[in-house]
Amino acid sequence: MLTLYDFPESGNSWKIRQIIKTLDIPCKIVPLDGLSGESHSEEFKKKNVDERLPALELPDGTVLAESGAILWYLAKGSELSSDDPLEETEILRWMFFEQNRIVATIAVVRFCILYLVEEKRDKSFEDVLRKRGAGALKVMNSHLKNNDYFAANRFTIADIALYAYSHVAGEAGLELSHFPNILRWIKRVEERERFIPFTER
Amino acid sequence: MLTLYDFPESGNSWKIRQIIKTLDIPCKIVPLDGLSGESHSEEFKKKNVDERLPALELPDGTVLAESGAILWYLAKGSELSSDDPLEETEILRWMFFEQNRIVATIAVVRFCILYLVEEKRDKSFEDVLRKRGAGALKVMNSHLKNNDYFAANRFTIADIALYAYSHVAGEAGLELSHFPNILRWIKRVEERERFIPFTER
Repeated sequence: MLTLYDFPESGNSWKIRQIIKTLDIPCKIVPLDGLSGESHSEEFKKKNVDERLPALELPDGTVLAESGAILWYLAKGSELSSDDPLEETEILRWMFFEQNRIVATIAVVRFCILYLVEEKRDKSFEDVLRKRGAGALKVMNSHLKNNDYFAANRFTIADIALYAYSHVAGEAGLELSHFPNILRWIKRVEERERFIPFTER
Repeated sequence: MLTLYDFPESGNSWKIRQIIKTLDIPCKIVPLDGLSGESHSEEFKKKNVDERLPALELPDGTVLAESGAILWYLAKGSELSSDDPLEETEILRWMFFEQNRIVATIAVVRFCILYLVEEKRDKSFEDVLRKRGAGALKVMNSHLKNNDYFAANRFTIADIALYAYSHVAGEAGLELSHFPNILRWIKRVEERERFIPFTER
């Protein structure tokens, strides 16, 4: 059986719970508190040199890290992925975009707003990242003008990855109503069978 | 023939020039000036909704974006990639890590230092990102303690991706001598046949 080391409040962890649900993959879920440092124990460091969540342990003890890589592994051979090299590349294109342009901006600002005490916050830092996040949402909105989903003309792991933090952009101080195509896509994703809500605090 | 829209000063573009050289792939290279806005023309926007470089145009007009996705496409079936699902996942793990933890930190700070006029710079923003970049280098250094390369026990596109901006961390104000395993890996990468130097200003 697979074991997911899960940080319930993390969007990156949500992605893995969502694919497990969508594809009905048997998996033991071990919640860890990423905020109180449970992923920084010596024991966990042996599993993941990066000391981050989520991480997926295979029955033989191999541990996979990075939400995008775990999505890729679990989606292999399913309708959430593709065997076609071009579709595969399109899926990855948006997953790399997500890590660089959404997670490194919107997810970081949202984290600062929701979890940091006032003295630890740097509003100027948040402002720069928020502006970068808005630029990324603009790109997503443009792409969705003529596309229902991000790659391969269907719902794939690229949509699962991008949904995680773009749909909570409001919690990072961004206004999603400026991006109507994203709002329609969010609705499309949430109305799918087996959709599970992002765990809120 | 393939066409690479290349920004010669960009580490992300270097990755594609490097894989083309390593695998001896025929490719026309069209340099564009990413700084003066040549990628924001209406004509280029039709090729890449994200208006960024590098981008790879296939003979049928399909355009691939995101350096990681382009690397993936070009490496398919070669020794720089893998057919094994676990090795493939390990390669992607480090490529996602690169986009989120190296490009979004070190590459951004380096860009601010090298290209922005003093009045446009926000030192506090740079400091926070520099600290995050140092954390990412620490993870790389730990992984390289027991590994010559990042994935699949050999040189892959994960190494090409990670080399691009980690080897110029000094230009972002970070001290690579604190990360001796990274320095040894950089030497290993640079001593490989067909290595091409990162184009400096």
